Amino acid sequence: MDKNHTWLIVGLGLLGGRYAQLLSARGYTVTGITRSAETLRTALDRGYIAAGKTTDFTDLIERADRVVFGLYPTVLLDWVRQYGGHFRPGTRITDVSGVKQGLVEPVQAALPAGVEFIASHPMAGRETTGIAHCTEVRFDDANFIVTPTPANTPAGIAWCRALAQTLGFARISELTPAAHDRMIGYVSQLCHAIAVSLMCASDNSELARYTGDSFRDLTRIARINETMWAELFLWNKQNLIDEIGQFTAALDALRSKLEAGDRAGLEQMFRLSTERRAAFDKK
Amino acid sequence: MDKNHTWLIVGLGLLGGRYAQLLSARGYTVTGITRSAETLRTALDRGYIAAGKTTDFTDLIERADRVVFGLYPTVLLDWVRQYGGHFRPGTRITDVSGVKQGLVEPVQAALPAGVEFIASHPMAGRETTGIAHCTEVRFDDANFIVTPTPANTPAGIAWCRALAQTLGFARISELTPAAHDRMIGYVSQLCHAIAVSLMCASDNSELARYTGDSFRDLTRIARINETMWAELFLWNKQNLIDEIGQFTAALDALRSKLEAGDRAGLEQMFRLSTERRAAFDKK
Repeated sequence: MDKNHTWLIVGLGLLGGRYAQLLSARGYTVTGITRSAETLRTALDRGYIAAGKTTDFTDLIERADRVVFGLYPTVLLDWVRQYGGHFRPGTRITDVSGVKQGLVEPVQAALPAGVEFIASHPMAGRETTGIAHCTEVRFDDANFIVTPTPANTPAGIAWCRALAQTLGFARISELTPAAHDRMIGYVSQLCHAIAVSLMCASDNSELARYTGDSFRDLTRIARINETMWAELFLWNKQNLIDEIGQFTAALDALRSKLEAGDRAGLEQMFRLSTERRAAFDKK
Repeated sequence: MDKNHTWLIVGLGLLGGRYAQLLSARGYTVTGITRSAETLRTALDRGYIAAGKTTDFTDLIERADRVVFGLYPTVLLDWVRQYGGHFRPGTRITDVSGVKQGLVEPVQAALPAGVEFIASHPMAGRETTGIAHCTEVRFDDANFIVTPTPANTPAGIAWCRALAQTLGFARISELTPAAHDRMIGYVSQLCHAIAVSLMCASDNSELARYTGDSFRDLTRIARINETMWAELFLWNKQNLIDEIGQFTAALDALRSKLEAGDRAGLEQMFRLSTERRAAFDKK
């Protein structure tokens, strides 16, 4: 990536802040836009950005060569419709959104000719939020998914992959927006739905002293940013409903075997889960 | 605990082996009974036991002052009915079983007068099995639950707690067998049922490359010893069915909110799960 390019991070939250911090640390010129004066102060004080604004920021947009949207999906689309006209042709843009269908193509359509939006999803997060915690986010064992559309160019996609490499992601791959959202419905959103349900199932506070690793592992992600996750769930509603349906069917099958005292049936499910999980550990 | 006492570990698997290894390391005389010649050889070669047998072991039973049953619940009851008469009065016995109701009182009833069985559950395990892996089991962050009945004496219970301290458990507590089984149905068995169902829900092998920490955390315990867990599930059948019912109701509530596009309702569940989970991290 060209060190003469000026970067603009729009939205300096947990991920936007981390991108700004890492790009600055690697010698890039990074600017930032945030709604919060406190966030802006933190970003400047810590040297995550060279310059930034909370309002009247069209000059920052016009000066940017490379852009990252660190915004929630609904905010992102509104922002692009309001300010997207200020980007110069030749500008390349990516995002950090956890959902892609219904977002990527409208954003691409809202941008001026010659401005390329290559969507991507850094699959990393924390139970915390905000720029103050951003250095807790680890990319070195995380997946980075580029979700190109027919509107994207090979050079744009290559730039997005180079960004992921610069940020230190462990694995970089490409999926269509639709395939991405199906995948994320299963490996991330369904897991969060389960963890939340497990915590909501009963008032278990008196059981905290007895919980071992199993329970803690399953519920770690039940500490959740409610605004962001409600948005992600609703945006990917149909995929997630389908995944909950498949999971519920499997759990129902287990319960039926249990009710019937079907030891062989239970052992068969346990063997299948053991085999499949072992394959995950090898990768 | 009296260093002149001779210990007998019946069943030298993952937990029985670990008990033998730690007690020997702390200077106690430990003997062992196992069905497997290979396990016996391993236990002797590694110095986990001073003596052991696979057959004709009544002399070991008669010499034992302190005993640990490292057996599956069904095997344990059969074993006690067959060999329990050989224990001397004054002998104290505990176990490692993950279920207690319907087990503890029959075992107590099957033992001769003056032989005290104080049941307990070391809440520690691994995805592995067998004595070869026993040193991987960690007790230093684990719970140890004593499950006394009216047949137990204060001295017997104190001995069982002292054993847990010697083995290095982080927290030692007492529950009735019924309360123990309800608790374990929620914090352990329900978690395993969920993890297994999540792996069985779909053929997800092509998704392994995209999985992040969430999915890996939720499914780690889907690698399961199928024989032992089928036995534990069936032994605690009604409690586990009740817990699955409560969990399913919570997940159904989440799905309904999602279907209805009820953002506020989703955020409310997320806040509840976040609050409850945060309380767990404090303890």
